[in-house]
Amino acid sequence: MSLQVAPLDGLGEIVPGDDVPTLVAEALAAAVDLLPLRLDDVLVVTQKIVSKAEGALVDLTTIEPRAEALEFARRHDRDARQVEVVLREARRVVRMANGVIITETRHGFVCANGGIDASNVGPASGSVVTLLPEDPDASADRIRAAIEERLGHDLPVIVSDSFGRPWRYGIVDVAIGVSGLMPLEDLRGVPDADGRVMRSTVRAVADELASAAELVLGKTARRPLALIRGATFQRGPGRVRDSLIPPEMDLFR
Amino acid sequence: MSLQVAPLDGLGEIVPGDDVPTLVAEALAAAVDLLPLRLDDVLVVTQKIVSKAEGALVDLTTIEPRAEALEFARRHDRDARQVEVVLREARRVVRMANGVIITETRHGFVCANGGIDASNVGPASGSVVTLLPEDPDASADRIRAAIEERLGHDLPVIVSDSFGRPWRYGIVDVAIGVSGLMPLEDLRGVPDADGRVMRSTVRAVADELASAAELVLGKTARRPLALIRGATFQRGPGRVRDSLIPPEMDLFR
Repeated sequence: MSLQVAPLDGLGEIVPGDDVPTLVAEALAAAVDLLPLRLDDVLVVTQKIVSKAEGALVDLTTIEPRAEALEFARRHDRDARQVEVVLREARRVVRMANGVIITETRHGFVCANGGIDASNVGPASGSVVTLLPEDPDASADRIRAAIEERLGHDLPVIVSDSFGRPWRYGIVDVAIGVSGLMPLEDLRGVPDADGRVMRSTVRAVADELASAAELVLGKTARRPLALIRGATFQRGPGRVRDSLIPPEMDLFR
Repeated sequence: MSLQVAPLDGLGEIVPGDDVPTLVAEALAAAVDLLPLRLDDVLVVTQKIVSKAEGALVDLTTIEPRAEALEFARRHDRDARQVEVVLREARRVVRMANGVIITETRHGFVCANGGIDASNVGPASGSVVTLLPEDPDASADRIRAAIEERLGHDLPVIVSDSFGRPWRYGIVDVAIGVSGLMPLEDLRGVPDADGRVMRSTVRAVADELASAAELVLGKTARRPLALIRGATFQRGPGRVRDSLIPPEMDLFR
């Protein structure tokens, strides 16, 4: 048993209004060396093209920063308009210190800058930033449906984005939306190799799949699609929003 | 460009005193379908066999829990002796609530239960738990050195373990020790695909490699080794301990 992660080419520059689900299905259909698709295949799609196609974009030239954003930006050499957008997108500010803004987005994600990103938005858009998709699980649903229609195969889909973590430097890709797979595999109650029952093992398999995809997609290239073949995961009606720790259970508010 | 993750078989049950570096080098040498090794290969070794071989084990029958451990265990239906070991291994208790103990270990890792684990320790060891290796970067150094001696190839090595994260359910494998590669790839100052300079992109590539390996190794099987071929990473004298956020910069103490 071996895992393969293959980047998919053939997707051009995505612009607002593009039908990403259909374009992704076409790119898959063109990757004939990966066909037929298998039951242990998963497709990872990076957030950036989803947000761009869905129009989850803000032109910073239209933004009037509030006083708090101006002050934070001045102190930490940041773009006050971008700080303003982060605050507008936040359900709650978790931390705002050391030049870093950690917010809880309206989806429930806790991440730096509310997932707002200025890189790789497009050549003619110096002042445009991407927001997270409105409902990334639903975005994944639409891509999966288009693939099923085009290829007659029910391919699980992950929409991924790069998040930082407390305590460790660096970002890793995680799943922000899924369709057709369970983001968590619950092994509680399953015996380990010695027959002992495991108490607290829930594998965040969709996050690990997103990280594996990042290893071939990278950050500087315009590569938004990876097909992963041979991973151990559970098919099913999973939602990333159900894999977030609810605020009342959260030890790090 | 495509990434492959292959589990390696041929390592038997590891017991204290086993020479894991030599055994790993032999297992690699026996995996003839993966030879010759390539410059974009990385080996991931799970923490459990390293801890067992190095004798980083505690027999809970020898442990006398303090009052705080007894009380926490009673309230949350846990083993008081294990709670005691977690507290002894901690440099600092970060959170102790909801039945969860998050500590900072003496290495600087912030994780649940101090990385102490009772599963897959061995059939005849019902009361034995594993601790984290004393110095996981040094453990990785020894494995890399044994491989270079046996196979004449400088193969970067990652020692991995499963950690939870705030805000998201489930555990993901991360790097707790590395040898021969940089755990972080710093892209700050590198232009993105549109020629815009990226401000805050540091890829936690060793953590993503550890997560990719977990996808083939899983949790219930006795599979401690995975070779990853084709990833984008930087060779070099990296140390995981340099990739941990120092306490004074930490927003989530």
